[in-house]
Amino acid sequence: MRIKMTFCYDGSDFYGYQIQAHEFERSIQDEIEKTLSKILNEPIKVVASGRTDRGVHALKQIAHFDVSKLNVTLDRLAYSCNCLLNDDIRVIDFEIVEDTFHARFSVKKKHYRYIVSLKKNDPFMRKYSYQIKQSLNLEEMQKAANYFVGEHSFHNFCTNDEDFIRTIYDFSIKKEKELIYFDLIGNGFRRYMVRMIVGTLIEIGMNRFDLNQIPKLLDPSYLKRISFKAPPQGLYLYDIIY
Amino acid sequence: MRIKMTFCYDGSDFYGYQIQAHEFERSIQDEIEKTLSKILNEPIKVVASGRTDRGVHALKQIAHFDVSKLNVTLDRLAYSCNCLLNDDIRVIDFEIVEDTFHARFSVKKKHYRYIVSLKKNDPFMRKYSYQIKQSLNLEEMQKAANYFVGEHSFHNFCTNDEDFIRTIYDFSIKKEKELIYFDLIGNGFRRYMVRMIVGTLIEIGMNRFDLNQIPKLLDPSYLKRISFKAPPQGLYLYDIIY
Repeated sequence: MRIKMTFCYDGSDFYGYQIQAHEFERSIQDEIEKTLSKILNEPIKVVASGRTDRGVHALKQIAHFDVSKLNVTLDRLAYSCNCLLNDDIRVIDFEIVEDTFHARFSVKKKHYRYIVSLKKNDPFMRKYSYQIKQSLNLEEMQKAANYFVGEHSFHNFCTNDEDFIRTIYDFSIKKEKELIYFDLIGNGFRRYMVRMIVGTLIEIGMNRFDLNQIPKLLDPSYLKRISFKAPPQGLYLYDIIY
Repeated sequence: MRIKMTFCYDGSDFYGYQIQAHEFERSIQDEIEKTLSKILNEPIKVVASGRTDRGVHALKQIAHFDVSKLNVTLDRLAYSCNCLLNDDIRVIDFEIVEDTFHARFSVKKKHYRYIVSLKKNDPFMRKYSYQIKQSLNLEEMQKAANYFVGEHSFHNFCTNDEDFIRTIYDFSIKKEKELIYFDLIGNGFRRYMVRMIVGTLIEIGMNRFDLNQIPKLLDPSYLKRISFKAPPQGLYLYDIIY
């Protein structure tokens, strides 16, 4: 029986989603697998929609797992998980799905949000945003964002060595009070891709990088990996569409 | 020379404002005194408007200290402090004041805010609010809050053994989306007083305590210390008026 699991987490105190080599390095996957295995009384392996890096948060993450026999209701399973799990991971719900559902391969769209805070002397958003002291040119940043929309080769905006073609359907930047939200919706994102794109936009917003370089950087024949990477604490896996 | 210092802190990882018996127990006072002493090159003792307990936050806290010789500008002093301090304490500014100014004795009004979150499965507000799963009757809670406004003997709503008479000028409760803000403005608050008052209101909001008991509990001749105390992570020292 295949179960779909929806959950969220504050990534601050984790070494990332994926199980680490050292037991003492907390990972979301490890804590979820241990909790499910305990409650369901059999070894459970979960497959998530994708990994998130150290310090990255998830407002909505999806995983699936197979279980031979379900000895509790799904509501009770969620309740039990939330009792056993540390309070920086919360299960939202469980759902029985077809065996053909795959948390990673069935993904149609992913939505990532990146948060920049311009608020000065704020100790509360240090783990939940990228705090920047100088002002940013939002108009220039939105112009740059538009270049990324569509199907492109993101070879210069990730650390992978192959499989760079991705489609970004929507990329909006909005400012609310002293917070700037970068919302990217695409069919998939490679490692560090969101952080490298947002990092580049921030350089543009600070007038330290020319937005006219973007089309060239998206040209498959031009190899020059960019060196700007926004820090992890501003990044949130926001939604996954199947 | 007397300096007034305005600062804020995320209380999550501290044992409270006041210096603790054990060096390994972080306190805000200790970290500020060590930082100021280092920069100003003489032993500095700070006097704050009041203490905050373990896990309690401050959006605005005020302290004063005396220094024999100021070898930096006040802006530079703030900048240096923020470089040396851990990022869960932030200095907002410094100001030279008259010798008659006293951070504790000169206080006219204090404003505390308490935040309750009704959002389900939220790992992000666990250190910054009191997360409650059931709904609360706001109308009953506001009625109860009104009883506390004015000059009263708060002997049943604090853990001190004397000096209970305080005046609450304003006590409002407002709900924004899934957060409830309790704002109390008074001439002073005794130990645990805000948390005991808010704790009582939450019991009333859950229909587990009768609001008509409040006038009796405020009667100086009636001794029955209440046993409801809302947890520290929802409490913020919000403002201090001199």
